[in-house]
Amino acid sequence: MLHVKGGTLVTAEGSKRADILCGADGKIAHVATTIETPTGCDVVDAAGLLVMPGGIDPHTHMEMPFMGTIASDDFYTGTAAGLAGGTTSIIDFVIPDSRTSLVDAWQAWRQKAQKSAADYGFHVAITHWNDQIYHDMKTLVEECGVNSFKHFMAYKNALMVEDEAFLHSMRRAAELGAICTVHAENGDAVAYLQQDLLSEGRTGPEAHPVSRPAAVEGEAAHRAITLAGLLGVPIYIVHVSTQEGVQAISEARLRGQEVYGEVLPQHLVFDESVYEGSDWLKAAQYVMSPPFRPKHHQAALWGGMMSGQLQTTATDHCCFCAPQKEMGKTDFTRIPNGTPGIEDRMSVLWHYGVKTGKLTPEQFVALTSTNTAQIFNMYPQKGSLAIGADADIVLWDADAERTISAQTHHQNVDYNIYEGMTVTGVAKKTISKGHLVWDEGDLRAVRGAGQYIARQPKRRNVRKPL
Amino acid sequence: MLHVKGGTLVTAEGSKRADILCGADGKIAHVATTIETPTGCDVVDAAGLLVMPGGIDPHTHMEMPFMGTIASDDFYTGTAAGLAGGTTSIIDFVIPDSRTSLVDAWQAWRQKAQKSAADYGFHVAITHWNDQIYHDMKTLVEECGVNSFKHFMAYKNALMVEDEAFLHSMRRAAELGAICTVHAENGDAVAYLQQDLLSEGRTGPEAHPVSRPAAVEGEAAHRAITLAGLLGVPIYIVHVSTQEGVQAISEARLRGQEVYGEVLPQHLVFDESVYEGSDWLKAAQYVMSPPFRPKHHQAALWGGMMSGQLQTTATDHCCFCAPQKEMGKTDFTRIPNGTPGIEDRMSVLWHYGVKTGKLTPEQFVALTSTNTAQIFNMYPQKGSLAIGADADIVLWDADAERTISAQTHHQNVDYNIYEGMTVTGVAKKTISKGHLVWDEGDLRAVRGAGQYIARQPKRRNVRKPL
Amino acid sequence: MLHVKGGTLVTAEGSKRADILCGADGKIAHVATTIETPTGCDVVDAAGLLVMPGGIDPHTHMEMPFMGTIASDDFYTGTAAGLAGGTTSIIDFVIPDSRTSLVDAWQAWRQKAQKSAADYGFHVAITHWNDQIYHDMKTLVEECGVNSFKHFMAYKNALMVEDEAFLHSMRRAAELGAICTVHAENGDAVAYLQQDLLSEGRTGPEAHPVSRPAAVEGEAAHRAITLAGLLGVPIYIVHVSTQEGVQAISEARLRGQEVYGEVLPQHLVFDESVYEGSDWLKAAQYVMSPPFRPKHHQAALWGGMMSGQLQTTATDHCCFCAPQKEMGKTDFTRIPNGTPGIEDRMSVLWHYGVKTGKLTPEQFVALTSTNTAQIFNMYPQKGSLAIGADADIVLWDADAERTISAQTHHQNVDYNIYEGMTVTGVAKKTISKGHLVWDEGDLRAVRGAGQYIARQPKRRNVRKPL
Amino acid sequence: MLHVKGGTLVTAEGSKRADILCGADGKIAHVATTIETPTGCDVVDAAGLLVMPGGIDPHTHMEMPFMGTIASDDFYTGTAAGLAGGTTSIIDFVIPDSRTSLVDAWQAWRQKAQKSAADYGFHVAITHWNDQIYHDMKTLVEECGVNSFKHFMAYKNALMVEDEAFLHSMRRAAELGAICTVHAENGDAVAYLQQDLLSEGRTGPEAHPVSRPAAVEGEAAHRAITLAGLLGVPIYIVHVSTQEGVQAISEARLRGQEVYGEVLPQHLVFDESVYEGSDWLKAAQYVMSPPFRPKHHQAALWGGMMSGQLQTTATDHCCFCAPQKEMGKTDFTRIPNGTPGIEDRMSVLWHYGVKTGKLTPEQFVALTSTNTAQIFNMYPQKGSLAIGADADIVLWDADAERTISAQTHHQNVDYNIYEGMTVTGVAKKTISKGHLVWDEGDLRAVRGAGQYIARQPKRRNVRKPL
Ligand SMILES: [Zn+2]
Ligand SMILES: [Zn+2]
Ligand SMILES: [Zn+2]
Ligand SMILES: [Zn+2]
Ligand SMILES: [Zn+2]
Ligand SMILES: [Zn+2]
Ligand SMILES: [Zn+2]
Ligand SMILES: [Zn+2]
Repeated sequence: MLHVKGGTLVTAEGSKRADILCGADGKIAHVATTIETPTGCDVVDAAGLLVMPGGIDPHTHMEMPFMGTIASDDFYTGTAAGLAGGTTSIIDFVIPDSRTSLVDAWQAWRQKAQKSAADYGFHVAITHWNDQIYHDMKTLVEECGVNSFKHFMAYKNALMVEDEAFLHSMRRAAELGAICTVHAENGDAVAYLQQDLLSEGRTGPEAHPVSRPAAVEGEAAHRAITLAGLLGVPIYIVHVSTQEGVQAISEARLRGQEVYGEVLPQHLVFDESVYEGSDWLKAAQYVMSPPFRPKHHQAALWGGMMSGQLQTTATDHCCFCAPQKEMGKTDFTRIPNGTPGIEDRMSVLWHYGVKTGKLTPEQFVALTSTNTAQIFNMYPQKGSLAIGADADIVLWDADAERTISAQTHHQNVDYNIYEGMTVTGVAKKTISKGHLVWDEGDLRAVRGAGQYIARQPKRRNVRKPL
Repeated sequence: MLHVKGGTLVTAEGSKRADILCGADGKIAHVATTIETPTGCDVVDAAGLLVMPGGIDPHTHMEMPFMGTIASDDFYTGTAAGLAGGTTSIIDFVIPDSRTSLVDAWQAWRQKAQKSAADYGFHVAITHWNDQIYHDMKTLVEECGVNSFKHFMAYKNALMVEDEAFLHSMRRAAELGAICTVHAENGDAVAYLQQDLLSEGRTGPEAHPVSRPAAVEGEAAHRAITLAGLLGVPIYIVHVSTQEGVQAISEARLRGQEVYGEVLPQHLVFDESVYEGSDWLKAAQYVMSPPFRPKHHQAALWGGMMSGQLQTTATDHCCFCAPQKEMGKTDFTRIPNGTPGIEDRMSVLWHYGVKTGKLTPEQFVALTSTNTAQIFNMYPQKGSLAIGADADIVLWDADAERTISAQTHHQNVDYNIYEGMTVTGVAKKTISKGHLVWDEGDLRAVRGAGQYIARQPKRRNVRKPL
Repeated sequence: MLHVKGGTLVTAEGSKRADILCGADGKIAHVATTIETPTGCDVVDAAGLLVMPGGIDPHTHMEMPFMGTIASDDFYTGTAAGLAGGTTSIIDFVIPDSRTSLVDAWQAWRQKAQKSAADYGFHVAITHWNDQIYHDMKTLVEECGVNSFKHFMAYKNALMVEDEAFLHSMRRAAELGAICTVHAENGDAVAYLQQDLLSEGRTGPEAHPVSRPAAVEGEAAHRAITLAGLLGVPIYIVHVSTQEGVQAISEARLRGQEVYGEVLPQHLVFDESVYEGSDWLKAAQYVMSPPFRPKHHQAALWGGMMSGQLQTTATDHCCFCAPQKEMGKTDFTRIPNGTPGIEDRMSVLWHYGVKTGKLTPEQFVALTSTNTAQIFNMYPQKGSLAIGADADIVLWDADAERTISAQTHHQNVDYNIYEGMTVTGVAKKTISKGHLVWDEGDLRAVRGAGQYIARQPKRRNVRKPL
Repeated sequence: MLHVKGGTLVTAEGSKRADILCGADGKIAHVATTIETPTGCDVVDAAGLLVMPGGIDPHTHMEMPFMGTIASDDFYTGTAAGLAGGTTSIIDFVIPDSRTSLVDAWQAWRQKAQKSAADYGFHVAITHWNDQIYHDMKTLVEECGVNSFKHFMAYKNALMVEDEAFLHSMRRAAELGAICTVHAENGDAVAYLQQDLLSEGRTGPEAHPVSRPAAVEGEAAHRAITLAGLLGVPIYIVHVSTQEGVQAISEARLRGQEVYGEVLPQHLVFDESVYEGSDWLKAAQYVMSPPFRPKHHQAALWGGMMSGQLQTTATDHCCFCAPQKEMGKTDFTRIPNGTPGIEDRMSVLWHYGVKTGKLTPEQFVALTSTNTAQIFNMYPQKGSLAIGADADIVLWDADAERTISAQTHHQNVDYNIYEGMTVTGVAKKTISKGHLVWDEGDLRAVRGAGQYIARQPKRRNVRKPL
């Protein structure tokens, strides 16, 4: 048992002074203005701190095999780093290869994730269409706690799904009460532009953003939303990074479509200039897809979040160390795509969002935790401070500063894209399922303590565009 | 004390099975999956019902002097009718005439409202600008529990405020932690069109919508939002009735402006055809401003609510009986503008919104209660089912039907715009401050039981458009 | 020689009283306020008539093999019917099958078109990509008078082009000074929806519009424009029929892209109700792609033309008689897609456009002739009344009426979609290359008199979106 | 007589090799591929040059009394400078003070303009509404050759017109066949912001753009267009300088409204940084309204012109020398608003528009001359190279360069906003009414040679938004 005492509770709905009592079962046992500490119960002093639902990162790739290598943060190191930053749950991705069934792949990922220090769930990727997939989707939803599927419109000749298969998958998911998510970039256009650039001898990382311009995302987002609209089903767009993407989402929502958009904090603070300069490795370390953009896109992303048209934040946490990045030394298309960030998401969003007055603390909670829990049907188990919810809690110091660095971070990767950035807003203590796992610098993450979040299906209204 | 037993609690955040215990102080004393009924405590059986925060209607005009007459529903009859429909709080309007100070007017309205059967607050109208108004705004905010001011861009030579005065008022309100609301129609254009129509001999109610076309609202909404954006202050647009209005609001929100929009259910279900036909009185009974619109505007309003770009619903409840409407028999510009509706708002919204699948029950609560409480800083006293909140509760039967009629309604007016409409979704029981005041047809409203809601100021971030 | 005497010349730029002298070489020899009739020169009395450049229809399918049959109007009958309606030139489509080279196909089409009664050119379709196509495009442009290529985003597993191939084709066409045109509907979505409808037993023509909703066009138009924008090349969208299409085009043009849009008059006057009703054949006769739409799309098309964001009108003239349409009796996806209309385009556009005040006569000329000539680089040989231009002229009676009927039309097809429609605005006389070929009901079309219009390439600026 | 020999004619419609013969009456007597020089006729060698219609500047303020002083370029010096830059006609503004009738004011301006070296017309300003104005508008249109009226939404308490008066004026103008033009900035907002800035001690020119942000223009443009749409009448927005303005115009045009927009080249090349820095006079020299903007607005203006949604270019030529600008030394609101530019408009537009590939030469002609002539009904007398048109011609060297400087310009003002800018595209020779008045540096402008352009009314279709 743990008594979180003296803090200010902040949820998506509002803020108030209150204590929380975490039960021995890892759930919130009581919430009241003041609680008397039960005998034998540890007390966590929250005076002067904001007490918020633990962060949920709905987009990570721990130890993912990708582009001929494997992401360096595994389920243990990655989730532990998350705890140090206030994130207490993740949803990772099962990405079946073409020879493996969805269910087998899901089992393999379950196996790998046993070592997690924090709770985790899975989206499962659909890359093509056939009868087995049709049936496996049902198994995953009804027996495996999966209620979301992922689609890639990029990565031609690898993960890319065709529109017709995408339609089949969306229809099926909706029948089952699952929601579809999508990486929205036009894979044909990327493939064309990559070849075009390489044929011109442009092999360095500065060609990466040129091969995936904003319009390529805007196009795919618009297409994905249109296809979902034909069926009247919901769609969730991962890592929205462009004004065009925000526009596509908000226009569809105004037509009554159920469309969600996810933002990565790195897209809020970096622009395309990170790919310039003579330091090959530094540029390569920022290679991820979608790439960093001209600055005006950042305003669009902020506006999307402030207006409620973008609902979640994630990291697309996917770590590759220098030797891995160097696989693309002579060909930017072979640089493993991915950036770290699970440890810093919440601080960066607070610093640039709340401290600047763009977001309220309540919106911060919605964007880092509650909305995600609602969309992926983990609420109120996750994303809430209500009695009965999982005792996943972050104690936030709104005024503390920290300087981000690979020297001090807990992520298993040899760089940090935010290196040297001083941010205001720090996770002082993190509680996972009632256990204090991060205490002002002391990381007490426990290998294997994380549990699988079996998410239930949720029937949604069919909403053809108005 | 009252034990609400066996229901399903629905709030803006989610739904769950739970009991509520209302304390003797009129506040929610306890919420839990099951509560044992305290000795001597009345039990309200909520089995099969949805238990939701009581509705808040932020836009009513009880016993308002207007256009040479006085609205027929007074604070008692109007609020009582609200209780019968599940609405437990209103925010009415203090509209000072040019010779009365804001504070004096507020006192006069306080006086009139003593008879209310439900809780009430006030917006205060600003129609011009001078030093006394500058000072009175402070008094109202700091001493009188007013945190919102109203502006009319229509009603030229009467209530209409000029843009420069509007800017002064918005700046002042923001300094004080108050929010400005606005009736957005271009008063010059309306005046021009009215004279134009009358000069052509078009004197009947069918000319009313022609004198206030959609563009006239769209223009004013766009202008009000632009002016607010110059100052970086929030703005709340009352009775948004057009696609143009929704567009102006959503575009501004995407630029990061804090803009709110209110919808009246009548605009969701009636179109301009109500002004046609040979029954003068019937057409006149629908004369309100803004008028009913071509049907495509309804889709825009729904989309605005579904996407979260429009946040609240209200009624603009303003009743005039036949003899009053007939003051405009020979001149449509003299028909007292206004329609009744406080009793039917929630049923109509449920029927057309939730039953059709456009809105979830959670969105319904947000739109009828919680968002309003948050915007006007009454949350969580109002709009919540949390422990400590006012015990204003509606027990909703999602499947029950009722047929609306002036024969049976409780509003003090001789017609009902929804006459004969059968709606699904009925307030079975209403609890106001812990008292059961509406019990399946039995209205136990108490004259004078309503209390003034003193709303505190709330500092908001200055948010210049991104 | 022919002296067109006493008329009012209307061009895209303006109107004035003037005579025209057509030379023996089929070109305009002189234009002046008054011209003295040369000895031996025939006089055509144009008093009271508007004298305009002959219409150009840039989208016809004469005797096209399609869906297992051949369009019933051949190059002679079709072009002759055009002359009766004031249209003096067409651009038809060469559609190579997968085994035939582009150049061979072009030659085959040249052969078929020898019988034309009016001048003609060809767009050539690109349906996939390889080296031979790369080379053949050069031959076509440099040796065959082809300066435009066609792409189908619909007709999956038949004509549909993939995005990557489309990009290759656009890049190549731009190098050569040719322009790409595109049928914009998402073929994957259409295929999915068709199968879905058929599997539900919806086999009749009323399912046709359901299988190709507006969003399917909007998506493809948006995608085609995005792809063109990546390369900075122009794009021409055939038969724009939706608000979404107009929006995609106008937004791109405001970003500085060179995008053109074509309207079919049938989309301006018919809506989806043509597919209803119990008369199978009648509904089938309206089966074309894109299908007829809900009415609000018509307003968007008009607005597009009025604002100059849509530049041309065409017919997609493609005739199938009752026995051909009946090939789809049990399966709407087998109804040959196409409607007639070359004879009526100008009258219908005048009646609904100019007579209603939407368009000026000058805009009418731009939309029926001049803009097309400029876009496809036939100007000022075609589309002009300047000295030296081809003497293709229509003498238009702005006030005359005619009733359209298959009984009286000259098209070789057994129905007319405008059957019974009385239109104001009639081609009284048509002059083709200086010969009077239509004289108030007397059609003097000459088989084989039409000549091939060899269109030269035109370099265009690369215009990446601003 | 003058024989323009060997040049390439460029008009809005197309380009071709041709000679022009200018008659003794100052009109174009003949156009043909080659013309034999008549006896005694002077020859102007146009080899290697583009021969275009002389520029028309529809927005100048010669010797205008404004803000307590008088613009330094008078009708002679200003029009002479225009000829040196290829501009052969202007439309200036009659701005009646409140005590002078419209007709009297027009006569006073006619008097002042007698000294013009080039042809000129007048727009007449409407600043309020009464019966005399109603009648004077008719006189001006029917007897005085005025077919356009000007309105100011800015300059509160001076020239600003109220919306109701604006509506009356637009209705009246439409009845008479005249078109209304409008300076679109919200005067209330400007007045508020100016006082706010001054009260904060911000008195320097860097406060000028802050007092008139882009939204202030966007709002007024949107409002003006909405009001015009209520009446179904055309509207012409002068000096559009913002993305918001372009958006308002293009949206209205897509609804079928007849809306025109004018661009000043200075808004295409300068941004708000011109107001920064310590050189007070230099900053003050750029003070004009609307002010220079953040750069992204420039892209919007280019897109507007490229797409045809903005139709004309002008200069708002209004010169004030240093002693005049210094009237605002301690108060930026007293700096006379205005910048010179009539001499440089065409070169600057060519350099930044045509040379960069944004515009074709044909579009250049449309934007500098032909569209203006059509909108203000001077076509084909002006804006054309057709036989019978006024022989106003510029011979353009597309490749020549010149460096702009107040040292060498012909404008009667002591600075040039383009000082030091080297532009490609130079007016080599200018012909006004058949006389060679500018010959490669030799300015032969004749005081008083300019004639009044009496413009006829033009009935336009009433076009309520679709
Ligand atoms: Zn991704
Ligand atoms: Zn990812
Ligand atoms: Zn109102
Ligand atoms: Zn009201
Ligand atoms: Zn087609
Ligand atoms: Zn076709
Ligand atoms: Zn101006
Ligand atoms: Zn001006």
